[in-house]
Amino acid sequence: MSSDSVPTRRTGGRSALVIAAVRDAVEDLIAESGADKVTVPAVAARAGVSPSSIYRRWGDVGSLVAEVATLRLDPDRPLPDTGNIGDDLRAWARELYGHLARPTKASLLRASAVLADDGETNCLASRRDEAERLVERAHAHGQFTPSVRQIMDHLVAPIIYRITFEPDTVDAGFPETLVAELDRITETG
Amino acid sequence: MSSDSVPTRRTGGRSALVIAAVRDAVEDLIAESGADKVTVPAVAARAGVSPSSIYRRWGDVGSLVAEVATLRLDPDRPLPDTGNIGDDLRAWARELYGHLARPTKASLLRASAVLADDGETNCLASRRDEAERLVERAHAHGQFTPSVRQIMDHLVAPIIYRITFEPDTVDAGFPETLVAELDRITETG
Repeated sequence: MSSDSVPTRRTGGRSALVIAAVRDAVEDLIAESGADKVTVPAVAARAGVSPSSIYRRWGDVGSLVAEVATLRLDPDRPLPDTGNIGDDLRAWARELYGHLARPTKASLLRASAVLADDGETNCLASRRDEAERLVERAHAHGQFTPSVRQIMDHLVAPIIYRITFEPDTVDAGFPETLVAELDRITETG
Repeated sequence: MSSDSVPTRRTGGRSALVIAAVRDAVEDLIAESGADKVTVPAVAARAGVSPSSIYRRWGDVGSLVAEVATLRLDPDRPLPDTGNIGDDLRAWARELYGHLARPTKASLLRASAVLADDGETNCLASRRDEAERLVERAHAHGQFTPSVRQIMDHLVAPIIYRITFEPDTVDAGFPETLVAELDRITETG
């Protein structure tokens, strides 16, 4: 990386490099060995930094994994905006599913489950925020929608549950099926 | 414990005591500090056995936690049998929820999420088996039911998801709501 060869007085530059290296190391190690095998010394060795610099910044391995999970489980993209809540939800669910089903992301998701124990992380809070935005926009256009609670329970929950606990049962058409079923729950009459 | 003072030639007796003590220690430690803090030395100290006897029998802490999760996450009770699939599912969901929402069980559930990574555990396979039995019995009585897949996705998944990732959002009436919504998905016409 060229920044390595350009000494600078801004400690922010060096610090940002360390942070990036440490986060990459966490993701690599989780992908290789699973989240329960990630330790501060292993992350330090992989990132080429001292364990003490990790303890100083993050406290313990749990906080570090929580931070990486929160950052990396967030698909970085604009929300779908098709003008129809059903199509928006379909695109949104497909994207969420495609993102989280990748092996590294699935491992991070499982790791973050353990951390939810202490309220250390809620890496899925952004999904709830997104569902709220989709619903609010549709309401503003006069559309009838499922509630945010129903979207979380019948669309997000089954996706997360399958990826986390029953990874062998997932298939590509799954988000479509869920959106059709969510539609049956909310249809009037 | 009286067995301690009665020497016996059956090593099974001694061995069973060790196994029980180790499993209890795992559950206690998870309840106290969370699953990510459980280590073989800590379990050994709590159970009053040597770490090497744990490594010998279980291999590593992951396998040990997986075993305890599989045993303890299983509510030990007969399946509801009301003669009506809707009532059966309501009773079943309420029981599952009541069992898993207890703090120790919720922590075990989160711990088992990490282990699902290596296919080391699927502590929820019994839930799928139970759903299959409920559905088969109702079919034998000529009743129309949701599919097992729908029961897992719209009843079990939201319960597990909320307990695992959003423990602050659960309330006692939640299983009832889900069963009513599952009913809307499957109702004909």
